[in-house]
This record gives sequence, structure tokens and C-alpha cells, in this order.
Amino acid sequence: MNKAIEQANKAILCKEVPIGAVLVDNISHKIINASHNMVNLNNNASSHAEICLINEACKIKKTKFLVETSLFVTLEPCTMCAAAISEVHISRIYFGAYDEKKGSLDSIMKLYNTKNYFVPEVYGGIEEKKCSDILKNFFQKKRNR
Amino acid sequence: MNKAIEQANKAILCKEVPIGAVLVDNISHKIINASHNMVNLNNNASSHAEICLINEACKIKKTKFLVETSLFVTLEPCTMCAAAISEVHISRIYFGAYDEKKGSLDSIMKLYNTKNYFVPEVYGGIEEKKCSDILKNFFQKKRNR
Repeated sequence: MNKAIEQANKAILCKEVPIGAVLVDNISHKIINASHNMVNLNNNASSHAEICLINEACKIKKTKFLVETSLFVTLEPCTMCAAAISEVHISRIYFGAYDEKKGSLDSIMKLYNTKNYFVPEVYGGIEEKKCSDILKNFFQKKRNR
Repeated sequence: MNKAIEQANKAILCKEVPIGAVLVDNISHKIINASHNMVNLNNNASSHAEICLINEACKIKKTKFLVETSLFVTLEPCTMCAAAISEVHISRIYFGAYDEKKGSLDSIMKLYNTKNYFVPEVYGGIEEKKCSDILKNFFQKKRNR
């Protein structure tokens, strides 16, 4: 999760909302790739950290599915990202802060209780305070500007 | 919707599941772009027609959001696509066939009843039989092979 936090901090330098994500191979335990929110960089409101990570990882691995991988992300995924993670069959999700506004694994809905979806294992609240503080500080500074 | 059906037929030639989508500017009524399912072409299980369309349209328009646009798609969007459509603020969705397995605007859930989501207008069942027959024929032929 510390690598995902590094990515979130990197996002701030790119003037992005600080959310970071890392994908790890379950067998080798090696990092496949790391990404962050790129809404401004890509000029695309759907370029969330998880989506950028998935698109790049499929290119790197040259596979449609990302089986036997684990995703570490600093914020609970929204509905779009949670569904995308399921579409590509990522097997485990570790997320940091809970997202009361859009978090779709636990906060506003439990998406994976919906039938017909591939269901990854989910572990929430990993390094929760660190992950949450990055976002709080970012929006606090933005308001004070 | 006929242009979206054309895209679905084009998808078959590329050995993709035949789902097509078109984005139209609400003011000029001109087509911004058209796309189809590209899971095999992109080697990415999340490359649904709507996602490919959104990514390309943001590049064409050089904007984060796709306000004042209408999406025509041959199949009811899944959760990932429905949420992505909301993220980029597409204002209207016209879909063809209902999807009992993954359709998230009406069939398995009504995603836009969830709070905190931008809510497009939704019109379902446009050219429903044509759109549904393309998929039925595709899977029938696949089974008979």
C-alpha cells in the first residue's frame, strides 16, 4: 500500500486528485505496474487510477484478463472502477480510505453482491489514516487557495 | 440507432461480440464518433463499446466531460459502462436490447437511483428486435461451430 500512497503523492505534482494504485502479481509478488488518477492529464473524467492501471497492465501482460493479481488502491473504488476490476478478473482488492460519497464495495453499495459478477476478495481500511489524510490535506489546501 | 447497429455488424468482422455505440452532439446533431466492442482488438476485457467511445470522444473534443451529447448503444450498458457514462456527464442514453445478465439501467439494477451520481436521461428498447437479433445470431453461430 505504501507504493500506492507514493503514486497518490505523485498525482499531486501532476495537479490530479491524489489517488494511487498498484497491481501486484500473486505468484511472483512483483509489481506489474503503478498508476494514479489522470483525469486532467488524459482530459477524461473517467481516467481514475484503477482504470489507468488496468489499461496499462493489459498492455504490459498482453492479456484480456488480469487473473492472479492483487490491486492496492488508496481509496475505495467507485462503481465504474469496481465493475472494471471485476470485468478483468483481478482476484484481490486492498483499499485504504473508505469513500462515503462514491465507494461501491462497502460505503454506498456492495456491488459484488450483485449476481453475474466475478467477485474479487476485498480488504478495506489498509493504512486508512495515511490514505485518507492525503485526500483531506489536498482538498483543505484547495479550499484555502 | 442504425449507425450503432452498423458498428455492431462491423464488430463481427473483427471477431468481437457485436455491440455498437455512437455519440451525437445534442446541439449540432452531428456524430462525434462511433465505436464497437474491442475486447479482443485491445486485449482488454474492459474495452466495451461505450468505454472505447468515451475515450476516443474525450480525445476528439479535448474535454474531460461530454456534456450535451447523446449516446446510442445497441445493448443496455453494464455497471461499468453506466457509471462511466455518468462520470463524463453524457446527457442522454438510447439503448436497444435489454441485457438480463448485466444491464444496469433497468435489468439487474437501476444504477442511476444511487445517490451522488450524475443522472442522464435514459430511453430503452429502441430498435430492440434488430439489436437483440444481432447478438442472438452471433451466439447461435458460435454454438453451432
